[in-house]
Amino acid sequence: MTYCVGLLLDEGMVLLSDTRTNAGLDNIATYRKMFVFEEPGERIIAIMTAGSLSVTQTTIAQLRERMDGPDADSETSIMKAPTMLRVAEIVGNMLAQVRADVDDKLSTMRQAASASMIVAGQRRGGDMRMFLIYPEGNFIEATEDTPFLQIGEHKYGKPILDRVITRKTSLTDAKKAVLLSMDSTLRSNLSVGMPLDLAVIRRDDCRLSEDRRIETGDDTFRRMSEAWSAALREAFVTVDV
Amino acid sequence: MTYCVGLLLDEGMVLLSDTRTNAGLDNIATYRKMFVFEEPGERIIAIMTAGSLSVTQTTIAQLRERMDGPDADSETSIMKAPTMLRVAEIVGNMLAQVRADVDDKLSTMRQAASASMIVAGQRRGGDMRMFLIYPEGNFIEATEDTPFLQIGEHKYGKPILDRVITRKTSLTDAKKAVLLSMDSTLRSNLSVGMPLDLAVIRRDDCRLSEDRRIETGDDTFRRMSEAWSAALREAFVTVDV
Repeated sequence: MTYCVGLLLDEGMVLLSDTRTNAGLDNIATYRKMFVFEEPGERIIAIMTAGSLSVTQTTIAQLRERMDGPDADSETSIMKAPTMLRVAEIVGNMLAQVRADVDDKLSTMRQAASASMIVAGQRRGGDMRMFLIYPEGNFIEATEDTPFLQIGEHKYGKPILDRVITRKTSLTDAKKAVLLSMDSTLRSNLSVGMPLDLAVIRRDDCRLSEDRRIETGDDTFRRMSEAWSAALREAFVTVDV
Repeated sequence: MTYCVGLLLDEGMVLLSDTRTNAGLDNIATYRKMFVFEEPGERIIAIMTAGSLSVTQTTIAQLRERMDGPDADSETSIMKAPTMLRVAEIVGNMLAQVRADVDDKLSTMRQAASASMIVAGQRRGGDMRMFLIYPEGNFIEATEDTPFLQIGEHKYGKPILDRVITRKTSLTDAKKAVLLSMDSTLRSNLSVGMPLDLAVIRRDDCRLSEDRRIETGDDTFRRMSEAWSAALREAFVTVDV
């Protein structure tokens, strides 16, 4: 499985993804699940993926081909699309098409493939927007009331987000919250694993302001994780029943 | 859905269940999901249920009929079974049989019913044991390494248990841990709801030492929940990234 989370806040966006993929417990690998497409100052689009690797890789590859091809235009390239809504539509249509193709191939084995994505970004002069794209290609959008979107193993890490995240949360607190949300997920579910990819995009910058790979054994992450465990245990002691 | 959790500790057992059942979002009701069978000082058995209400109610009713009937014996009655292992087998067999019956009835509608249970207890002179019974009737048991079992919506409330529960946890801390685990689940998932049923069984007592229904708006629970939220937010502030 996977855990990816994206926050859409007044100050900007924070995105975090793990990198573990598995086909059974004895076939574990590391694959990047966050893909950033950037024309600094003009447009930034980040896509996070969950689900069948054959579907997500092909979808990203096809999006790249449409983007880099000589006939790239506002209808086919996410880097030329006039709005973020149109970007979400292009990604959704591509995901739905690739998933249907892979499903066809798998149907003889009575298997099915599925995938979902978070698409976040901004173009100069436009709004910062974040979408969760379902396997069928339809999507929902993060709003004032629901400022975060999650895909994959989302339940372990949801309580902390429910408690601390609002649109007004600072980017620093937001980074902390997604890392702690990931930390709970890593501890409770083997199918989510290090390293992690963290991206921060400030509102109206239209570029990455932070792009960090957090490796297994990363000192800062380990210290944060230990401090959080200690703080939680202390919080547990202070609460009376 | 449902959330039920049971802890098997050195000092005894702590069990907690919610009471929400739903058939769609517009058909919500309150049903007890914890059933205690007690011959104080001799034997105590607690069963918590998750899944299709038609399956769990019929299973409990059938177990009761076998228990109260004139021909109740060690093969059919959980109150006469010679060991807790045998109790788990009786419950597992009954659950599998009822589930298969209901599945047969539903098959014309291309639907299926499922349910799982936690069975915990002790008879005088025997060990205190706790089992998670799968819809097929097979089961696993809580051990030294894995001192808690969960059924239903188990993911939201797992991180706190992973962090604080060991076999040596006191019953007081255990009560706090299951209530906080439930609190996280209640906040993040609508299909789990108040009131709650909490039971505590001290080792070798073979009787309930605490049996509490926690109603919606219960003052103690609300205060604990608020104190936990505040403590978590404070913990969040103290951790550096």
